[in-house]
Amino acid sequence: MAVSMDPGISLQELRLAARNHALPLEALRSPLTPIGLHYLLIHYDVPFVDPDSWQLEICGAVERPLSLTLEDLRRRPATDLTATMECAGNGRALLEPRPVSQPWLTEAVGTARWGGTALAALLEEAGPSRAAVDVVFAGLDRGVEGGVEQRYERSLPIDEALGSESLLAYAINGEPLPAQHGFPLRLVVPGWYGMTNVKWLTAITVLEEPFTGYQVTAGYRFKRSEDDEGRPVTRMRPRSLMVPPGIPDFSTRERILDPGPALLEGRAWCGRAPIERVEVSDDDGESWHDADVERDLEGRWAWVRWSYRWEPPRDGAFTLCCRTTDETGETQPLEPEWNVGGYENNAVQRIPVVVRP
Amino acid sequence: MAVSMDPGISLQELRLAARNHALPLEALRSPLTPIGLHYLLIHYDVPFVDPDSWQLEICGAVERPLSLTLEDLRRRPATDLTATMECAGNGRALLEPRPVSQPWLTEAVGTARWGGTALAALLEEAGPSRAAVDVVFAGLDRGVEGGVEQRYERSLPIDEALGSESLLAYAINGEPLPAQHGFPLRLVVPGWYGMTNVKWLTAITVLEEPFTGYQVTAGYRFKRSEDDEGRPVTRMRPRSLMVPPGIPDFSTRERILDPGPALLEGRAWCGRAPIERVEVSDDDGESWHDADVERDLEGRWAWVRWSYRWEPPRDGAFTLCCRTTDETGETQPLEPEWNVGGYENNAVQRIPVVVRP
Repeated sequence: MAVSMDPGISLQELRLAARNHALPLEALRSPLTPIGLHYLLIHYDVPFVDPDSWQLEICGAVERPLSLTLEDLRRRPATDLTATMECAGNGRALLEPRPVSQPWLTEAVGTARWGGTALAALLEEAGPSRAAVDVVFAGLDRGVEGGVEQRYERSLPIDEALGSESLLAYAINGEPLPAQHGFPLRLVVPGWYGMTNVKWLTAITVLEEPFTGYQVTAGYRFKRSEDDEGRPVTRMRPRSLMVPPGIPDFSTRERILDPGPALLEGRAWCGRAPIERVEVSDDDGESWHDADVERDLEGRWAWVRWSYRWEPPRDGAFTLCCRTTDETGETQPLEPEWNVGGYENNAVQRIPVVVRP
Repeated sequence: MAVSMDPGISLQELRLAARNHALPLEALRSPLTPIGLHYLLIHYDVPFVDPDSWQLEICGAVERPLSLTLEDLRRRPATDLTATMECAGNGRALLEPRPVSQPWLTEAVGTARWGGTALAALLEEAGPSRAAVDVVFAGLDRGVEGGVEQRYERSLPIDEALGSESLLAYAINGEPLPAQHGFPLRLVVPGWYGMTNVKWLTAITVLEEPFTGYQVTAGYRFKRSEDDEGRPVTRMRPRSLMVPPGIPDFSTRERILDPGPALLEGRAWCGRAPIERVEVSDDDGESWHDADVERDLEGRWAWVRWSYRWEPPRDGAFTLCCRTTDETGETQPLEPEWNVGGYENNAVQRIPVVVRP
């Protein structure tokens, strides 16, 4: 992946930013992100799928290959799962030098109540081979990436596919999946970064050897240099975001606050371990104060809400920050860990504000 | 408004591009744009409005000021209007030098079926003064722009407000308006650029003198230089867009086509006069060929569909273009008319493609 030493974003990157939608940060107020505000990363083009001719194939190293219509899937036991999903490349545009790809700032996230049927039960029904290693999920979206023509495909280790709460989802927030979220069916793997949640699902293939497709061996690897083999990107690191308080300046997006106390609020999530704590700083991370955390209102895989009553000690300029720590003790860093693909940047968000006299 | 002599887009512009969503061009396939793919330009923050305490005030130079709840509005005669809406700043990022604001490329457009009640009938009921000049529409969104703190406000001339098919809309594509489209109520003025269609509407004020608010006297003026007083931006110029054919390269978004004929298709619209013609070029605008146009399937204010069966004369690289001409003879130019605010850029779209051998 190329990196840009130029501080300016290129037209190529802007083209990606135009089609891949970020969450406007004020939408962090909603526990469930409304359709149209949830982040979207679309590798190639959105396929507009005819549900009448669509089928899901479950094949490969299984005893009973299955072909299922959308109706077949809807007749299976239905379950709901609220999950926060974040793009693995969130924060990429804040790395220096900047890896050239979708230039996310901090807003590539959203939380939805996904409705569908359990992946594990369907796989068990197909009867995976005892020698199974990986399960490959293929979407109907096609394109060229890194010189390789491909349909979008990602794999999960067989134990993860059989042991997790993963869902084959045909609904979001109580509505049928819209095209941009993967109609008619997508995978939802709670706690993993977004690239795992394959959209426009067409085939699930059980393999007896490790999957070597582009999106696992070339894409989505955390590599410190081009020569580094790296490690796969999997579960979401701890991260928190704040609703920018006050009112914005249109063009700079800087915030202006009236004098007096302000309620700071936001969300925090982690795909590795539950959230332990959220802290707030009004001095760019020099000192930190505990925020109140409302835990698990929507279950383990949804972000938690946090809030903090801030008394500005004076008027003028401040840099507000928030950071979260998970139950293993992992905390968001003040500075990101640079890597070639620009993944997993969970450095603390900084919000410049001006408090009026 | 500042202009950038730097070819790179700044972080400030990227911040705007992240929150203001463009239409992914493959969504031009749909006559009605699905919620979540329609373009969004949000000047300040999305206000999340409590519908139970919300009211619409109709006031100023009227005989009978009105206060209406959402229920009151829903009880009035309901009407549907399919309208194509385009941001006045669409194409801004392709101007040189580039005006610094939301850096739209070509995709700030969408078409929706708006549901609501007629503006003109409601205004007549309030009884505007015979001396009325302008009608001001105020939204609940607040911010600072050009150094001026404001709620978003735009005006229409009284004759336009009383004589047009404008709608006070509480529904989109058969669903309640989502927050990002102006819940609980927005103005829809068919044929006008997007800035006119005030969201989160809270007050309609009839004035006996011209409105002099920021968004009419400072913003949304077509000015050839900073010293030019300019003219207001009003109705949409003729424009056409093409669904990029073939499959994309992830990072460059360049298109790869298999050999053989390709169906080129897209949409065309104009707020000034109906569409007369759409043409296609495969040589960067040197020569043009008439496309088939399907007219007015959704009424006068919706885009039309066009299609063209393209036989690539060879393999290799081409630059595909489309352009439309309205009934007054106005045609899209090959090069944009530069202006300070970067408005009304309806220059033809160029799509580089490679046809495989």
